[in-house]
Parts: sequence; C-alpha cells; structure tokens
Amino acid sequence: MRAEIIAVGSELLLGQITNTNATFISARLAEIGIDVYYHTVVGDNPDRLKKAIGIAEKRADLIVFSGGLGPTKDDLTKETIAEMLGTHLKMNNEALVSIEDYFLRTGRMMTENNKKQALVLADSVVLKNRNGMAPGMALEKSGVSYILLPGPPHELEPMFEREAIPYLLGALGNKEVIVSRVLKFFGIGEAELEHRVQGILQKQSNPTIAPLASQDAVILRITAKALSTDEAEKLIAPVEKEIRDLVGEFIFGINNDTLSSKAADLLKKAQLTIAAAESLTAGQFMSELAGESGISSSLKGGVVVYNDDMKVEQLGVSRSLLKEYGVVSSECAEALARSAKLKFGSDIGVGLTGAAGPDPHDGKPVGTVWIGIALQDGDVKTFKLDLSGTRNTNRRRASQYALYYLIKELKKRIVENKILD
Amino acid sequence: MRAEIIAVGSELLLGQITNTNATFISARLAEIGIDVYYHTVVGDNPDRLKKAIGIAEKRADLIVFSGGLGPTKDDLTKETIAEMLGTHLKMNNEALVSIEDYFLRTGRMMTENNKKQALVLADSVVLKNRNGMAPGMALEKSGVSYILLPGPPHELEPMFEREAIPYLLGALGNKEVIVSRVLKFFGIGEAELEHRVQGILQKQSNPTIAPLASQDAVILRITAKALSTDEAEKLIAPVEKEIRDLVGEFIFGINNDTLSSKAADLLKKAQLTIAAAESLTAGQFMSELAGESGISSSLKGGVVVYNDDMKVEQLGVSRSLLKEYGVVSSECAEALARSAKLKFGSDIGVGLTGAAGPDPHDGKPVGTVWIGIALQDGDVKTFKLDLSGTRNTNRRRASQYALYYLIKELKKRIVENKILD
Repeated sequence: MRAEIIAVGSELLLGQITNTNATFISARLAEIGIDVYYHTVVGDNPDRLKKAIGIAEKRADLIVFSGGLGPTKDDLTKETIAEMLGTHLKMNNEALVSIEDYFLRTGRMMTENNKKQALVLADSVVLKNRNGMAPGMALEKSGVSYILLPGPPHELEPMFEREAIPYLLGALGNKEVIVSRVLKFFGIGEAELEHRVQGILQKQSNPTIAPLASQDAVILRITAKALSTDEAEKLIAPVEKEIRDLVGEFIFGINNDTLSSKAADLLKKAQLTIAAAESLTAGQFMSELAGESGISSSLKGGVVVYNDDMKVEQLGVSRSLLKEYGVVSSECAEALARSAKLKFGSDIGVGLTGAAGPDPHDGKPVGTVWIGIALQDGDVKTFKLDLSGTRNTNRRRASQYALYYLIKELKKRIVENKILD
Repeated sequence: MRAEIIAVGSELLLGQITNTNATFISARLAEIGIDVYYHTVVGDNPDRLKKAIGIAEKRADLIVFSGGLGPTKDDLTKETIAEMLGTHLKMNNEALVSIEDYFLRTGRMMTENNKKQALVLADSVVLKNRNGMAPGMALEKSGVSYILLPGPPHELEPMFEREAIPYLLGALGNKEVIVSRVLKFFGIGEAELEHRVQGILQKQSNPTIAPLASQDAVILRITAKALSTDEAEKLIAPVEKEIRDLVGEFIFGINNDTLSSKAADLLKKAQLTIAAAESLTAGQFMSELAGESGISSSLKGGVVVYNDDMKVEQLGVSRSLLKEYGVVSSECAEALARSAKLKFGSDIGVGLTGAAGPDPHDGKPVGTVWIGIALQDGDVKTFKLDLSGTRNTNRRRASQYALYYLIKELKKRIVENKILD
C-alpha cells in the first residue's frame, strides 16, 4: 500500500505553521507497514486542491488529508473531495448533536457556519472527534482509500490512533497484529542513547526498534508483528530486557507515561503528599503535576517566591544563608525544599532555584539550576543542572528534571520500603 | 512568481523529522512577495524525485529544493536535477578547498564521498555554506528557477537569508515591499470573528486579511504590497481602524504580542506588582507570566492552594465563606485575590478557582471557573468562565483568561490614570 499525505491550509504555505501532522501520520503509518511516498501541502484553494488530489490518485492507494474541515468559508477539503468523487455531503446527526451540545454548555452563539462542520461525505465511515467539533471521515472509491482528518494536532492525533488506524488495519485485511511497547528515557540525549544501544538496533528486524526524540523525553519504540498479541509480546520481551540491562537507569516509564503521570502515580501508590517552593520555575513544576487527575490527594500546594525578600518573608529562608551561599545554590534549594515541606505539612518538599536567563542571576551563569528534594524521613537530596537553553526551555527543563529526580527517589524509597516491588 | 518547495529525504516520509525547512522558506518567500503554491516531500529515490520535479516544473516558476546534497549514496538531488535539465556536474574549487580545510581543522579523514559535495551544477550560481560542507546552487533554465539548499536547518537558514534571498530579489527585479500587521484576539472564536468582519474581508484585495487560529489566540493578519513601507502602512491603517471599530474589544495585542508578554508589559509600564493564589491552575498563571524576561520587578510570587484546608491555613480564607458559597464561587475567587495581594504586599492580586475536571468539584460542573482580580485601589472584579475542554485545556484556558482580564483591567486603569494613552 502506497500512501500520500495531503495537508490543506494556506497558513502552511505562508510559513505560519509547520506540517507536524505529516510527521505524526507518517510515523504511525510506518508502524503498521504502510509506506508513505509523498507529502503534499496545498492552500485553501479548490482548483489547486483538485489538481493535487488528481496527482495523488495516480500514485497512491491511500490518501490521508489533514485540515480544511473547519467552519469558515476557507475550509473546503470535504466539499472538494465530494465534487471529485462525484458524491455529496450529508448531515451527520451524531456530530450535529455534539456541536450543539458544545455551544449550549459554553453559552456561546452557534452560527450557521458551525453546522457545516457536521456535514460528512455520503457513504463514508465517520471518525469520531473527541477533542473538537469536526468529525473525520474514511471511504474507499475505485481502489483508492481517502481519510480526512481535522487540522489541529490535538484533534488529529487521538482521532488517527483511535479511529483511523483500526479502520486501516481492517481495510488492509491484515491478520497480523502490531504491538508496540514504548520505553521512555530522560536525562540522556537521543544520539547517546542510539550510540549505546546500536548493537541491539542493528540486529533487529522483528521487532523493530525506532528511536524518537520529543520535547519531553527520548523514546525507543519496540514494534513487533505477529499473529497474536501474545506472540508479539513474546518477541518484544527479550529485546526490552536487553535494552534495560544496558540503559535501564535512564528509563522513567513506558507507553503513555509522562514524567508528571509517573510521579503522580508513584506518590499515590506510596500515599505520600507533596509541596513545592519554586523560584525560577514559578509554579511550572506544581502545574505539571496538577495536570494529572486525582493529584489532589497528593499535592497539597506550594509557594512561588520570585525574589530574595519573598524567600525570607514567605518561607523563612535565612538571609545569612542567602548571603553566604547565594540564591542559586545547593543550600538554598535545600532550604526551599525543607520550608515547603514544613509550611504545607507534606511528606515531601521540592525546591527549585536557578538562573533561567537571559541574564546571569546572583553571579551564577544562565542555566545553573539547583533542585532540592526533602524526603519523608528527613533526608534532603540536592541536584545541580547546567542547562543551555533559552529562558523558557531552561524553566521547562528544570521542572522536568525535578519530576525525574522525584521519580527516581520515590522508586528507591518505595522499593526499599517494599510498598511496591 | 509561483513557487514550490521540494524537500528530499526518506526520514521525512518515515516521520523521523519534521519539514521545518518548508516553514522557514515559505515565511521568507512570503515576505519578499513570492507566493508558495505547493510543498512536496519525496524520499531518496531518483525516479520519484524526477516525477516530483516534472510536476513542479509545470506549476511553478521557482522550485526550491532542500536536502539530498550530502556525501552518501542516498544523496542525489543535484545528480537528478542535472539529468533532468540535460546538464552536468563540475567540481567547484572554492567549495573543495573549504571541505579540505574542514577535515584538516578537525583532524578527521576525508573520503572520496566528501569530494562529491564540492560538485555543483554547471552554469549555476554557487551559494556559499558557512555552516557545513555542501554548497547551495541557483540556476535558471527554460523560465524556471531552481534553488538547491542543504537539508540541515542550521546550514539552510543562513544560506537562504544571505545567499538565496539576494539572488531572488535580483532575479525578480522587484521593487515592491510586503508589510504585514497582525491583530491578536482573545475571547472570541475564529468562526465568530470571521462572521463579524465578513464585510471587510470580502472587499479586500490589497491589503489582504487572513484569519488564523492558534492555541493561544485568534489572529487577523493584514498584508499590503506597495512600492514603499510607508505606502504599505498607509494601506493597512484604515483597514485596521475598521476592524477595531467592529471587534476592537477582543484585541489584546499586535504582531508578536502574547497574552503573557502583553500583561508583563502593562504591569511594567504601570509599575505595578502582582501576586496570585491559584487552585485549579496550580501555578500555571504565575509560570506563564514568569516566562517573560524582566518580570521579576512585577511578579512577587504567590501560593498554590490545592485543597480547602490549604486555602484556610495558607491564605486565611474563612471556612464559613467556603461553606456558604462553595469553593468554586465568585466569593472564593475574590477572597483568593485579596489574600494573595495582602500576603505578598503586591498592588494586584489574582485568584483562580474552578472545576478542571474530569469530575465536578464541590457541586460545580466541570469547566466552571471563577477568576478574581483585586486591584490597587481596593476594587475587586470577578469573572466566570464555562469551559468545555479536557482537564488540561481547561486549566490552560483559565490561566489565559486570567491574563486576558488582567490586560483589560490594566488597560482601563492605565488609561484612566493617564499613565499611558
């Protein structure tokens, strides 16, 4: 099966946004064994879109569209495809009800434009949109499969995973199952990870191992094809073990784990509460933890102390400590962690201080960060980072490292105390 | 002049990297008035590359290639183009010397493959590579211009700016300039905004008006072509005024403004300090403000109070208030805002409370949020939101609305006090 991805949107051609959808779709299609031969980007222009479709139909068996399903008059992907395939649009009641619901709930005014989003191609399979209004569509005509997806990545990605992939596997008549296991790493670069596991990477064909880097983690995705899930898992297990033996110390989680979900999970399992005192991150660490539902039993709260006076007044950090060691120091991170724990009566306290940039802070170069973790037994660990990003990547990185070190400490304590094994 | 960008590289089709080069080149071409009609991505396959070039030659006057100029046998962009144009490659001495230099300097061994990188298309203008080995090329044949650029962005971007743009401007003999002005909206959906300004949108050709939605804002980009910047600005001004007269209440900033940069800017101009007490957002509001460099003179800090006890203990919110009105209430948001202001001795206090989801909170449905803003004169404003997203989009939206209402209040106060006009 040869695939082409057509992204529709003038903003892509103006360089206002990047075609990350093509990256996402391509990676997923590769996993299920579909080769992508071309990506095409075309603007919100029906004639040029028609020509692009005409070209794609000659060189692909599967065309995946992203974008152009919105409510405005520029959005014309489904209208253009309907015209080219000699079919028509019809109202999809389920989609219409969900759009009406949205406007009722939010008290906003629904316009005629919004109704247009519930129109789908006749004879298409409707792909449910759990994160937005425009439904996706899938249909087959004259030997070519067409899949239409909405443009916003947070709508497209879950729709592709949950709706389009099963549709495609069904259409392929594929009896094989594809099972993936994702190992998530932190604290190691993609190049170094790849270098260290090179020997394993090279000898594999089933399962395959694909390294990937995202903003949040470095990933190894192990993917096996087999006639049953069991069999696929049996192919994956020894490869995973080999990888863990080599670089297991950097693995913080698997599959959908994120640093914050893993930390929240471990806090919950260990029945420990947490509080934080944040300087350079200014709430980002707590906010990332709070993204996890069910965190309210673990996260008591914390303080953002953005200058020296506040650290003294709000948390009782001693002025002499700040004077002696400076605000960007192991001692200050420890004091912040201890104070947060004490003030909020939590089991664990986390402190973050550093020079985010663009200028050095208190004599310390940009990117110097200290993280303190005060544990339930009175012990305090501190960690130093030397980051090299911009102000905001440094702040984000610092929060992530705090979660990573928290995970490592929790795992250690939990294993030692046999709460988990 | 109609342009097409062809990126060459199988790693793009496998979803291992994203075509950010197309974004970069498109934005730069738009600025010099060249319309990009298509992006194409094709793998390291000479037959398919030839076909893609054949298609592009029929629909574009300018084809910009990225990638495929490396030393390996997969790199075949210039070889394929030479074949298609009936020309040949010749050694470029300047490029060869600079490659040899590189290997001498780094002490690495030069292979025959590396010499291949110094081969350029006969009769092409060589575009110097200051950050790598492969030179770029530009040439014109049968009315079509071809520009070949290396794939790595840190090589491509400076080469495009310093070598390709001057080449193109010379080739165009173009005297026109392109000026854009971006208006940024919040609190109004893309569809509704477009509906309200439809009359203005339809009658425009120069300037053009393009609506765009991102995660953070809805945007109208007004773009004028003229013989001078002055003249272009004169075309933009009356259109901007018309738009402001209709929907100005939703405009929070222009061009590169974000909600946080605008809020930080206004706080600084008004010389006001701020503190926050956050429940559902758990530090996200403060963290977004802290992303702006120079915020330390305005942001004193704040408290994250994630459950009722903490609101009482850390901020002195009265238990009877929480009992009478509930924790998701105008009264609680007001108490949080007042307490933050008092506790941190700031001019302004912001309070955020609500039900982020997935479950209702304190009897209030998911998406109900109250924002309180305690102002320097003792006045407190509260705002209610009914959001309809997931836990994390609700939390993000709540932070953004808090910034938006803060901006509106700051603008009002600042104008009234004639600090700004």
